[in-house]
Order: sequence, then structure tokens, then C-alpha cells
Amino acid sequence: MASNALSNITVLDLTRVMAGPYCTMFLADLGANVIKIENPKGGDDTRVFPPFKNGQSLYFANINRNKKGITLNLKAEEGKQMFLEMVKKADVVVENYRPGVMDKLGVGYDTLKEVNPGIVYAAISGFGSYGPYFKRPGYDIIAQAMSGLMSLTGVEGGGPLRTGSAIGDLVAGQNCTIGILAALNARNLTGKGQRVDIALVDGLVSFLENNTLRYQVNGVQPERMGNRYPSAAPYDSFKASDGEFVIGCGNNKLFTLLCEQVLNQPELPLDPKYDSVAHRLENQAELKKIIEAWSANHTIEDAVSLILGAGVPAAPIYNIKAVMENEHIAGAREMFLDCDHPVAGKIKVNGNPVKLMDDMPTLKAPAPELGQHNAEIYGELLGLSEEDLARLKEAAVI
Amino acid sequence: MASNALSNITVLDLTRVMAGPYCTMFLADLGANVIKIENPKGGDDTRVFPPFKNGQSLYFANINRNKKGITLNLKAEEGKQMFLEMVKKADVVVENYRPGVMDKLGVGYDTLKEVNPGIVYAAISGFGSYGPYFKRPGYDIIAQAMSGLMSLTGVEGGGPLRTGSAIGDLVAGQNCTIGILAALNARNLTGKGQRVDIALVDGLVSFLENNTLRYQVNGVQPERMGNRYPSAAPYDSFKASDGEFVIGCGNNKLFTLLCEQVLNQPELPLDPKYDSVAHRLENQAELKKIIEAWSANHTIEDAVSLILGAGVPAAPIYNIKAVMENEHIAGAREMFLDCDHPVAGKIKVNGNPVKLMDDMPTLKAPAPELGQHNAEIYGELLGLSEEDLARLKEAAVI
Repeated sequence: MASNALSNITVLDLTRVMAGPYCTMFLADLGANVIKIENPKGGDDTRVFPPFKNGQSLYFANINRNKKGITLNLKAEEGKQMFLEMVKKADVVVENYRPGVMDKLGVGYDTLKEVNPGIVYAAISGFGSYGPYFKRPGYDIIAQAMSGLMSLTGVEGGGPLRTGSAIGDLVAGQNCTIGILAALNARNLTGKGQRVDIALVDGLVSFLENNTLRYQVNGVQPERMGNRYPSAAPYDSFKASDGEFVIGCGNNKLFTLLCEQVLNQPELPLDPKYDSVAHRLENQAELKKIIEAWSANHTIEDAVSLILGAGVPAAPIYNIKAVMENEHIAGAREMFLDCDHPVAGKIKVNGNPVKLMDDMPTLKAPAPELGQHNAEIYGELLGLSEEDLARLKEAAVI
Repeated sequence: MASNALSNITVLDLTRVMAGPYCTMFLADLGANVIKIENPKGGDDTRVFPPFKNGQSLYFANINRNKKGITLNLKAEEGKQMFLEMVKKADVVVENYRPGVMDKLGVGYDTLKEVNPGIVYAAISGFGSYGPYFKRPGYDIIAQAMSGLMSLTGVEGGGPLRTGSAIGDLVAGQNCTIGILAALNARNLTGKGQRVDIALVDGLVSFLENNTLRYQVNGVQPERMGNRYPSAAPYDSFKASDGEFVIGCGNNKLFTLLCEQVLNQPELPLDPKYDSVAHRLENQAELKKIIEAWSANHTIEDAVSLILGAGVPAAPIYNIKAVMENEHIAGAREMFLDCDHPVAGKIKVNGNPVKLMDDMPTLKAPAPELGQHNAEIYGELLGLSEEDLARLKEAAVI
């Protein structure tokens, strides 16, 4: 019952670390034949990144599941020729080297489209392959900082903050997936492939949403405001007796429900201080005290349950343990997949958030060991024999 | 030169507010024929959301560019029949109502696939359409809280923090786009459409990346750590004479370059306190002081320039103004598109981060006024005359 949605697509995957592998994880989870090509000397950098279990990197195991793994030395002339032969039989090439590296290796887009005009060539880099900063190195933190997103995150009066996961990489991986699938659709129309050029910075700039529009109108740099939100109130974190939780009151109707059914203060929605979103935003500090006078006497669980019972959005702030044990997230939505890894043993990898109901992304195979599928893939795509492979290994080509 | 990558795809777009419209923005920017269907009584809620210019919501204008707009009352029997007729001629239906609403309206997936077995039906909701919490309302803050992502964001010893933009909505919009494009590819193989079921919470759970793996190995809830990163150092924000900037030193080689060429302390990379990533992580507070002893004497601009000059990743922390004026981001990468809006006048909408080099997403048309394309779309798809439309308007069907 694994996904076959992309079963007609063969992907040559030269990506390493996070952004690129997260993209090809989507393709693999959705059924594409993803062939991860690693250098024979150690492969993807993240094979030696923590966390480890039985010496196996779970960083690597998590986002490289469902892919085939082969080794290839692109700096060897024979390796390059083998790659070009495979490009003839592939639909997509994905890489996240710094712009220019593929050209220098002699396998840039201009070369690849000569051998296969239908090839979709997708690249992820910090700043993209053109523009004045295209050569700058781009890690996640660089994208979070330069995109403006850090300037919006943090408490009032505090410094700008990085979001606590590598969202610059992850958003770029998603955008690259969108670009590849759109380019494949275009190829059905034109017969031609094209380049997809993804920048970490661009992805997070697109994530600024209304902040760029507000700035245009009022010329004021949006301020950091903790967990508050400039367009709704109460929409924030609140104290309970055993920690904090959140309420997301998007409109007047929800606020009225909160006041009548939870706070037992039916007069509040009529109070000129709180009778509209604008007024609640102006007086939200006072409103927060009123809500916390109630919520501080309840546990998180009770407060959330009572507020949800009134039809008003509320939620606990889960830590990783709570997420991984949650009946809805880990249970019904299968956001953690059991993986029996040959080295690491039983682990859970993160599930896929794209639920295609007739092509559900599942775990078909653990992440490959270095060169695990050399015989299979080189046999299939290039017709190489075991003797050929032994010679190529001896010559450090694979 | 506007994108034609998805020019064969017609999308009936019932989405409102942020997550759904961000998805259909990708489809429209990439050339799909996106028909935004709004209720005749006011349409998308965000038409009255700030910020405004000349009374026009820029919230709405930003993410609804490149779409056609029609009005339709799905609660009227004739409106429902008109919708079903259009479904016969469409490829994709997207909606972000609470699960169950479409069924109650009589236009749920089971009905739509009867009229068009090839239809791809995509839905976005807080928790998805199945599982114990499927009926819970889900705003962005709810997803940020329940996914675990807030638990990772914030300063050491401080409370959990929301990322400063609606990333729960935006990531869901991207995942929905991926799901739709994958389902369209699958339809080419099978002739059949299917449901795409996207949850805000799932998307951000997938964004937890290695934190779920680290937790499995050591059983320790990952701590909030400001701008630091658990896998590299120095990888943080640092003080300059006029504010903060970031350095992203991913490996030993980059650290050596920083010490030799910038800090002028070539002995540091050999110091047992700093000679490996693990040791630098252990002693990063001390290392930060060493770096800031240098950087505090330089402006942000000089510090970043000197560090970049050594080949080490560094960046200023831009605010919205700086991003919108940047030569690379606003200039070369065209991440802000000039839009001449009939009501708002000259505005800039956010650019698209998916750069298809032969099908570049550009601005073809500003966001539609309510019902602007009724005559065009209803004429084309349903063959309705002006008299028909006048009658339907009178009857509050459109």
C-alpha cells in the first residue's frame, strides 16, 4: 500500500545534509525512484552527524529513508561518464552544492541538457544561482537572519531569535519539491526539462507574509511581540497552574464564546475595551490578566479542555515527548514511522505530512548504507557486471 | 514570459484566509487557471483584514494575485449544481473549511468524484480530516504549540515562543501544493483523482527534524537555546558595535579560516577546548567572548564583510526594510513584485520562491475584486449569458 504517486519518476540525487535530502525525501516517500549518489569516501557528511544509535547517524537515517544508495566519484573521468549515461535514463537531477561546483565538475545543466533535453535540473543553495550574493555560503541561520524572519521572532524588547529548527533548509526543500513537480508537468506539455533554482533566503522571505505589507502601509518595522499576533486577540500564551498554554481567538464570535462559557463574564464582549479586534488588541495586557485570573487556577489540561469545549481554539504547548506520544499526531496521523534499521535497530523516523489518501507515503525501506545498491542500480541502468563493479571500486570510481 | 508550467490545470479554489490561499498562490503563480470561488456576501474573510491601502486589504491582495475571482452561494441548490458542473471541467478542488463542512453542503469528495473521477480534492485543516482531534479548530498558533516547535524556540531559561509569522499556515500551504502536484502526476498514471489531506500540525511536526531523533537516543527534551544550534559552533548571533549579526561555522575548516583570517588567533583551532565541533559546543560561551572581543569593535557591516571575505558564512540580521531594499533579495531574486492594483494603487506583493527558469513565476494580474470574473468564467465554463447572470445575482446565487 506504499505510495505510487510518482512511480514513473527517476531522480538522481546528489544532495547532502538537510535541504536537498528533505526535498528528495518527499519524492521518495511519494513513490519516486530516488537514487542517492554519494562520494565513495564517506558519502553524505551527515553519516557522521549526531545523534547516533549503534554508531548509525539518525540524522542521516531520518531523511534518507526510501532512497536507493550508490557511490560515484564525479571527479574521475569514468565516474562523470557513468553519471551522464544515467542522466539519459533519469527524469530529475537534484543537487545542493554551491553554485558553480557542478559546472566545474563538468556536469552542469548545460552539459546535462545536451545528453537529455527532458531532464529537470533542480538546485538548492543559500542565495540561488544568480544575483550579487550567489557565491555566498548559506547555512540555515544565514537564511533566518537575512530573510527578516529572525527580526520578527522573540519577546518584546528582546533580541531577534532563530526558530528552533532548521526551517530555512526545510522550506527550501519543500519549494524545490514544488518546483520539480511543476517542471515535470511542464515537460509533459513541452517535452523539455528546465532548471529549478531554489534559495534558502527566498523561501523565508516568502514566509514574511503580511509583515511586508504592513511595513509598506505604515513604514514601521514590525516589532517582536512574543507569542502575540498583530491581527487578533486574545491570541497568545497564557499561564495555567502547571505551565503555559495557548488560545487562538480569531474573531468576535469566538471571544464571546470564551467570555460566556469559560470565563463566565458575559459582559466582557460588550465592554468598549474589548468589543472589537482593534479594541482587544489595544487592551490586550489587561485582557490577559483577566484570562489568567481564571486560567491560573486550572491545570493546562483542564483549561484547554474547557476552552475547547466552548468551541474556542486552544492547545497545550507540547514538548517533543508529548508530540511523540500523542494519540492524534503519533497515532492517527502516523507522524512517526517505525523503522527497523539494519544497524540502528528499531527507531522512529518522522512521518510525511503530505497525506495522499490513495497513495499514502509510508516507510518502504530504511536509509541505504553507503553504496548499498551499487550492484542493483548500476546493473539496471548501465548494464554493469559484478566484474565491472569490482574494477570500478578498485579504481575508486565507485 | 509568465509561467506556463501548470497551464493545463484548472483549479476550483474555495479557500479562505492564509493556508489555502498560499497554496493556490503557488498554483496560480506557476500558471494554473485558479478560479477563486467566494460567497457573494463579502467573500474571503481577509478582504476586511488589515493592512489597508485606499480601503483595499493588502493581506488579501498579496496572496490572491494571479487568480480569477467569482462569487457563488454553495448553500443555494442552484449554486451547488453550478459548482458540480464546474467540477466536471476542473482538475483540482482545494478547500480549507473545517472537516465535514463540504459534506454538509453536499459537495464533499464522495459527491465530487461521482461527477468527475479524475478530480484531485485537496483539503487543509488544523488537524486533518481523520484522527481523534479532527474536529478541533486549528489556527496557526495552535499548530505551532501542539507540534512541539514552540518548545524549541526561545532563549535558554525563557518560555516557549511562537515564530514571528504564520508558519503553520504557510508550511501547510506548501505541503498541499506538493500533494496536489503529486496527485496530478498519479492521475496521469491511473486516470483517477484522489484526496489530499493536509494538517497544519503535521507540517510543523515534520519540521522538528533531528530533535525527535535526539530525544529517542538520550530521552532528554531538547532545550531552548536562543540562536545557538546543537550541532555546530560558533553558530549563533554575536555583538557588533551597532547591533547583532550571525556566524554559521559548520565545520573545522570554516572555524580555522575564521581564526586565522579574521580573529588573527591561528592557535585557537589547535586548542583542545576548540579543536572539534564537540569541544567547541562544550566551550561555546567562552568562545563567544573571544569572538565578541573582536566583533564588538566592528560595525555589523564591517564584521560580516570581513568574515565573508575569509569564506566563512556570516550575515546581518535584516529587518523588513532592509530585506525589501536589498539588492540581491529585492533586486536580482525579485522577491517583491510591483503590482498596480486598481484600488490600492502601486504596491509590492511578495515574490514567489520557486524559480522555474523557463517558467518564471511573475505577476500577471492583481488579486480579483469580488466577483470580477463572473461573466468570463461562467460564460466559458457553463455557457451562461448576461441575462442568466443577472437573474442569478438577483436570486443571491452568485
